[in-house]
Amino acid sequence: MTRLVLAAGTTETAAIEGLSAAGTDGDLLVHTPSADAEILEYGKPVRAPVTPVSPAGCPTPAVVTRAVRERLDLPLTVVDAGLAKPTAAGTVTVGATPGRDIREEEPVPTAYGVWEAARQFGRALDEDLLLAETVPGGTTTALGVLTALGETDATGVSSSLAANPLDLKREVVAAGLDASDLDAGSCAGQPRRAIRRMGDPTAAVLGGLTVGALETDTPVTLAGGTQLLAVAALARHADADGRLSLATTSFIDADPNVDLSAAADAFELDVTVTDPGFDESHVAFERYLAGEAKEGVGMGGALAVADAAGVPMADVRDGVISTYERLLG
Amino acid sequence: MTRLVLAAGTTETAAIEGLSAAGTDGDLLVHTPSADAEILEYGKPVRAPVTPVSPAGCPTPAVVTRAVRERLDLPLTVVDAGLAKPTAAGTVTVGATPGRDIREEEPVPTAYGVWEAARQFGRALDEDLLLAETVPGGTTTALGVLTALGETDATGVSSSLAANPLDLKREVVAAGLDASDLDAGSCAGQPRRAIRRMGDPTAAVLGGLTVGALETDTPVTLAGGTQLLAVAALARHADADGRLSLATTSFIDADPNVDLSAAADAFELDVTVTDPGFDESHVAFERYLAGEAKEGVGMGGALAVADAAGVPMADVRDGVISTYERLLG
Repeated sequence: MTRLVLAAGTTETAAIEGLSAAGTDGDLLVHTPSADAEILEYGKPVRAPVTPVSPAGCPTPAVVTRAVRERLDLPLTVVDAGLAKPTAAGTVTVGATPGRDIREEEPVPTAYGVWEAARQFGRALDEDLLLAETVPGGTTTALGVLTALGETDATGVSSSLAANPLDLKREVVAAGLDASDLDAGSCAGQPRRAIRRMGDPTAAVLGGLTVGALETDTPVTLAGGTQLLAVAALARHADADGRLSLATTSFIDADPNVDLSAAADAFELDVTVTDPGFDESHVAFERYLAGEAKEGVGMGGALAVADAAGVPMADVRDGVISTYERLLG
Repeated sequence: MTRLVLAAGTTETAAIEGLSAAGTDGDLLVHTPSADAEILEYGKPVRAPVTPVSPAGCPTPAVVTRAVRERLDLPLTVVDAGLAKPTAAGTVTVGATPGRDIREEEPVPTAYGVWEAARQFGRALDEDLLLAETVPGGTTTALGVLTALGETDATGVSSSLAANPLDLKREVVAAGLDASDLDAGSCAGQPRRAIRRMGDPTAAVLGGLTVGALETDTPVTLAGGTQLLAVAALARHADADGRLSLATTSFIDADPNVDLSAAADAFELDVTVTDPGFDESHVAFERYLAGEAKEGVGMGGALAVADAAGVPMADVRDGVISTYERLLG
């Protein structure tokens, strides 16, 4: 049995204008991870006041992962990785608090404790794990972590926006390094320090979970794009040398800002890319084709699980449409 | 779709010697609700250090509910109703803290806020709800609540022990009334006050959930024995007049200390009793036949769901045995 473990958290880094598409505006963005967790668990927001959509109307990838969960048995655990708002999805506590802006010296003061609690949790789990995230602003904090580890050459960095604001991200990361008195690569071999100084709390949860699971020979698939590549980097910099897989979407594979095969080599990853076959036939698909969202909330991993289980992508697409209509139609 | 909602909490009332069979001794008892939630979610304890068994070796009814969950689709939400120890099961937060000894003036200071948060949560849920509890010492706090409401004539009170320590419970409740400056029936029509002065936090969670769900015409089945009868009483004393069901086990029905039909009349309940058909063929069943446990962790409700779905009780019994062997064999 495969279990989906979603690290749901927030970072004040997301409040920087122009970084994230994970909500129509900053006031709603802070509800996105709580809403995503509820969509996975209940098929709709329950306590959260909103269904996350990008400013251009792209529905959260939680809609895709939920559609898969309605078609096969995929148990879910949500870990509170620094939620700022209540959620009706049950959450596991590992001591995370909302992340601060990475332009501060210590955006994740809880990184060491969270990593260790998540590691113990990862050691205790024995189902195959599919690890995922929802954290607005997460590709910027991932770039922060990858930069601190000295691993940006291997990965590149994606975006939930069609036009990746890479210059802005680099500027934010440079300011973060400055505030933390670090250079690129200063945190090589020090993954928890990289998170504490330059990351967000989902990285601490997922890094710790990955290392704990690998220590006990539990199969781990990282389900996502840039942020999960950063988790792979963190695990390797923690000297975890077990077998590690990454499952992502064709949208990440097609992103010229990401070099999946270089990352696979650098971090010894088995990579699975799944194409959901979206086309222009429905508004739920259009923004994905335009390059928005691309990944998140376990989308690529859920698609891979569906594919491996023989669920036709046409069925998944039907589910995406019906979930979209229920939530946003 | 039916959703099982488990209120998992603790009360210092359970530390009174001789009251509860929900753990081999007091040190382990405090882990029981966390372990029960994990057994429902993962099929085994994960963070909790123990599988709950009574001093005489009766396995927690969570084993039965889990066996049902492995045979049909029964989504689970665990609400933190005052857990004292970490759990790997995700939990929803409504502001509950562990209950104090009911012999104190205010054993549940958070009762009003928890009730209201749970009511809002109940209003937001729209699946059929099966409400359950795990709280050691819960039949004593249920007797406290029923006494404060003036409803003990209608119900009686059961026990997880084969020899119900009724005299001790009455003594504890009398001391509680005394400390709270209440008489039997003083809290009639004041359900939240009854909990704050004489109950435990699971009653606040389940009472609020029930009232919120009934306000929005969501079908509610109370899954349990005495403690869920107390929840029915609380809902009726809160003037919730929607249709309410109770699903319990044949062990509760056979308990001479409980008058199910009087309770059904008093609180207008549709009662379903399900007999799992336990016999002497396996150690997992023996202590139930001897009168231990009887109910808890949604056992009667899960059996009713299995029965309604056409799952043969022989299959459920096989599942109980295999779960027992995995955990305690």
